[in-house]
Amino acid sequence: MNNYVKIFDTTLRDGEQSPGATMTSAEKLDVARSLAAMGVDVIEAGFPAASPDDLEAVRQIAAEVGNPPDGSPEAKVPTVAGLARANKSDIDKAWEAVKGAKKPRIHTFLATSPIHMKHKLKMDPEEVIQRVSEMVAHAKSYCDDVEFSPEDAGRSEPEFLYVVLGEAIKSGATTLNIPDTVGYTTPDEYYALIKGIIDNTPGMHAGITISVHCHDDLGMATANTLAGIRAGARQAEVTMNGIGERAGNTSLEEVVMALKTRHPVFGLETGIETQQLSRVSKQVSSYTGIAVQPNKAIVGANAFAHEAGIHQDGMLKNQSTYEIMRPEDVGVNQTNLVLGKHSGRAALRNRLAAMGHALDDVELDKAFARFKDLADRKKTITDLDLEALVADEFYKPREVFQLDDLIVTCGTMDMPTATIRLRGPDGKIHAHAAIGSGPVDATYKAIRAIVKVPNHLMDFNIHAITAGIDALGEVTVRIQAAKAQTAMSAQSEREYPRIYSGNGADSDIIVASAKAYLNALNKLIVSQTEDTEKEKNNFGVMLG
Amino acid sequence: MNNYVKIFDTTLRDGEQSPGATMTSAEKLDVARSLAAMGVDVIEAGFPAASPDDLEAVRQIAAEVGNPPDGSPEAKVPTVAGLARANKSDIDKAWEAVKGAKKPRIHTFLATSPIHMKHKLKMDPEEVIQRVSEMVAHAKSYCDDVEFSPEDAGRSEPEFLYVVLGEAIKSGATTLNIPDTVGYTTPDEYYALIKGIIDNTPGMHAGITISVHCHDDLGMATANTLAGIRAGARQAEVTMNGIGERAGNTSLEEVVMALKTRHPVFGLETGIETQQLSRVSKQVSSYTGIAVQPNKAIVGANAFAHEAGIHQDGMLKNQSTYEIMRPEDVGVNQTNLVLGKHSGRAALRNRLAAMGHALDDVELDKAFARFKDLADRKKTITDLDLEALVADEFYKPREVFQLDDLIVTCGTMDMPTATIRLRGPDGKIHAHAAIGSGPVDATYKAIRAIVKVPNHLMDFNIHAITAGIDALGEVTVRIQAAKAQTAMSAQSEREYPRIYSGNGADSDIIVASAKAYLNALNKLIVSQTEDTEKEKNNFGVMLG
Repeated sequence: MNNYVKIFDTTLRDGEQSPGATMTSAEKLDVARSLAAMGVDVIEAGFPAASPDDLEAVRQIAAEVGNPPDGSPEAKVPTVAGLARANKSDIDKAWEAVKGAKKPRIHTFLATSPIHMKHKLKMDPEEVIQRVSEMVAHAKSYCDDVEFSPEDAGRSEPEFLYVVLGEAIKSGATTLNIPDTVGYTTPDEYYALIKGIIDNTPGMHAGITISVHCHDDLGMATANTLAGIRAGARQAEVTMNGIGERAGNTSLEEVVMALKTRHPVFGLETGIETQQLSRVSKQVSSYTGIAVQPNKAIVGANAFAHEAGIHQDGMLKNQSTYEIMRPEDVGVNQTNLVLGKHSGRAALRNRLAAMGHALDDVELDKAFARFKDLADRKKTITDLDLEALVADEFYKPREVFQLDDLIVTCGTMDMPTATIRLRGPDGKIHAHAAIGSGPVDATYKAIRAIVKVPNHLMDFNIHAITAGIDALGEVTVRIQAAKAQTAMSAQSEREYPRIYSGNGADSDIIVASAKAYLNALNKLIVSQTEDTEKEKNNFGVMLG
Repeated sequence: MNNYVKIFDTTLRDGEQSPGATMTSAEKLDVARSLAAMGVDVIEAGFPAASPDDLEAVRQIAAEVGNPPDGSPEAKVPTVAGLARANKSDIDKAWEAVKGAKKPRIHTFLATSPIHMKHKLKMDPEEVIQRVSEMVAHAKSYCDDVEFSPEDAGRSEPEFLYVVLGEAIKSGATTLNIPDTVGYTTPDEYYALIKGIIDNTPGMHAGITISVHCHDDLGMATANTLAGIRAGARQAEVTMNGIGERAGNTSLEEVVMALKTRHPVFGLETGIETQQLSRVSKQVSSYTGIAVQPNKAIVGANAFAHEAGIHQDGMLKNQSTYEIMRPEDVGVNQTNLVLGKHSGRAALRNRLAAMGHALDDVELDKAFARFKDLADRKKTITDLDLEALVADEFYKPREVFQLDDLIVTCGTMDMPTATIRLRGPDGKIHAHAAIGSGPVDATYKAIRAIVKVPNHLMDFNIHAITAGIDALGEVTVRIQAAKAQTAMSAQSEREYPRIYSGNGADSDIIVASAKAYLNALNKLIVSQTEDTEKEKNNFGVMLG
């Protein structure tokens, strides 16, 4: 058995299913570039049948990230996968979306647990076997690289799994992924499940890759994933920061760093450049609006706290007594001056390319102008600064309403007042003043009086992005379209009522709050416009 | 072997070692009450030798939470443990702190790994054995219930561990705790370690409890803890929300819910009333200022997201297809009207007692007045509301500086201005106006101009505590005394430079920001006053 574990990142598919994690197509493309630059082997770019938008986002990632930037045949590019339920229409759309990649993959799935077959699929086991056989063959007719997942495998009968998986192999599947969809198993159970599949599936051979896909409902996703790898799996399906539905998926960073830190125990390699973990973690957190807790393993703010300067005065211990990983191994505290005031265009282009941003000449001109401006104000420019710059310049959603001016007065006198001016899609200026329960409430009331789109504010978060007195405040909000507005897109009973997150950064947190709300509202407005043209899809049924 | 797993909560000791998690004595007492009400078997209340303050906090918890409120002999009360290094002075202080509890415990530790013995202790193995034997005996001379931990057991020689642990048993230890101090082991390794200890330690008998203590550096703390329990451990050392140094300790909520959800696999019980998990999680998060990420297992905001109303319209699935735990099992979304407008004093007293708050008549009068006031403004009053009310009324630190008035003007005109009036310790009013980079910066500058205590703002977070338009904003800040001020308490080279967190709630987030900063500054001022009287302790050496 080979000793290389493929990292299959599903941040853009299973991760994006987290409540509120909706990303724009531009943000998805940016994350895909980062994942490729970090060395991810397979990027699951989305679920193309969900909507024409989703298909287009996957197609764009396949075209731009799934091909070598300069066309050189030996450059390493990731496989780009699209998810499809086990039906022809989904598989056709998945192929449409991924076929532009150098290494396309269709990933199809069907539930195999008694509870799912009975209540959800309303199919008997024979029908399930038949469907798997036909649909894997259909996918294979398009594409050599076909992955099949028996959904809720963790609660399926092992004997039945062997039969289904044997049929999938016969029909051409090359990767068999075994999801613990509800995060239910223990490491011992999951080890036994994977071992049983490898030992008992008819037709199993060296060309088949077994893949593990775990959820963290009981806090054991990482241990389960590693148990499956020990049993012989050679692909791990993971997300950055462990985001995903409910308690989320297995964390990419935990699995990769466990394999690396305990290399003598596992004897396995991955292709991940671990120094990029911290940067990509921050990028995903910023785009999805899903915070990483300080005590999160590997990428939490405190994960290396005894080394991060806080305790340096006091904890004068021998480093190895308490340290099993070095912060620099995961890219924490990269304070090295990446680029300086006198760096030229070529240096900027090279650094951005290493971070996964292949800019054309026009884009580079824009980025360089902003870089020079930043270099005048800030002495040390790190990868994080460049990331923020690129995100702000190239990955903004369409601005339907733009902030023109804002004045707010608040305090203990209990009459917080906001006066706002917005530029609307008609190009005209709209102004409104409102009193609220606080300065943000007053600002949001004034915005709502101008932007007349009913919505609920679900979540509101502010944090400082950079340390120190000149800290930039970043606000993340999540909103949901109110009933009246979703009616038109809710004709399919299983469609998600979508949640939109918005970000805004400013040294004035009230201004940042206004920007974040407008950002989310603009996404909502753009999406509702698109929804009216969208075909009606039923995408409530999703792979764990 | 019995089937009851004791839950040993170390939120107040190992959890409080998280950077920034410093709690006031009143907050610690409040958390201890909650832990006892939830059914925790052992509360590790602190490290009494760290400072007279710490000793006093443990003493108070032992006296108030470690004894039945009404003196009834059959009431269940938790054991109260104090941590001590393996020296007479630490053990004497630990006993001084815990002796007032009905069930006191002294928990002493000494490192046993080659790297720790050589670099940290500078002791040879024979000396370590001798010291353990003497110090466990010393602890036993005070107290029947003695726990011993070989620090960094995860990297110790098993054969040496057996000898050390055998000596500890001979000297009277009744609980042997096996810490994976650096979060390094895999579940298989940890299982083998615990099994080996049970099978090979001389003198092992049914009266000895083996305890597990894991850290989450590689994301496997919960799986390791459960592996140790399967191997025969019957005490789990855990913290709420998994807080603790670096990536933190094992999460109480994950271990308890895994044992409950997979009861047929483990066949084990705990004494935890799981419906209180969500409430206690929020309380600990609020006091420590350490946020819980949305995708945290069990207590994250999204852990039950498919059930939490967000997807209810769309995900019309059979409940059991995707659900292995019910939100109500962990107390999520408790919208039941606990008390109404017409509830009397007795009902309030009973509900607060069930939540761990035993109020005397004077305190109850105050709480009842606030309750009536709240009931006039809010229709449904839940446990969370009561928790906030009690925390605000009874667990505030001393207010050295008080907010009198604040007026802030900000917005896109780029000259955010704050005018503030504070009441100082002299009883006089101090006013100041300042311009900042944002409204919070302006407010903090004005505060600093009055409160002249050098400090760094390390972290600033705002979130909405309650949903909806009338949401209350809560701000958490963490500050660290600047060099000039810490000099007097930093004479011991290993003492931690302390971090202080502050909270503030208000419907105006700028007012909440001012309150939070003043709260943290008041803690810092009070602590520095106490520090000058404090004996010099070396407490850099801490148990994992």
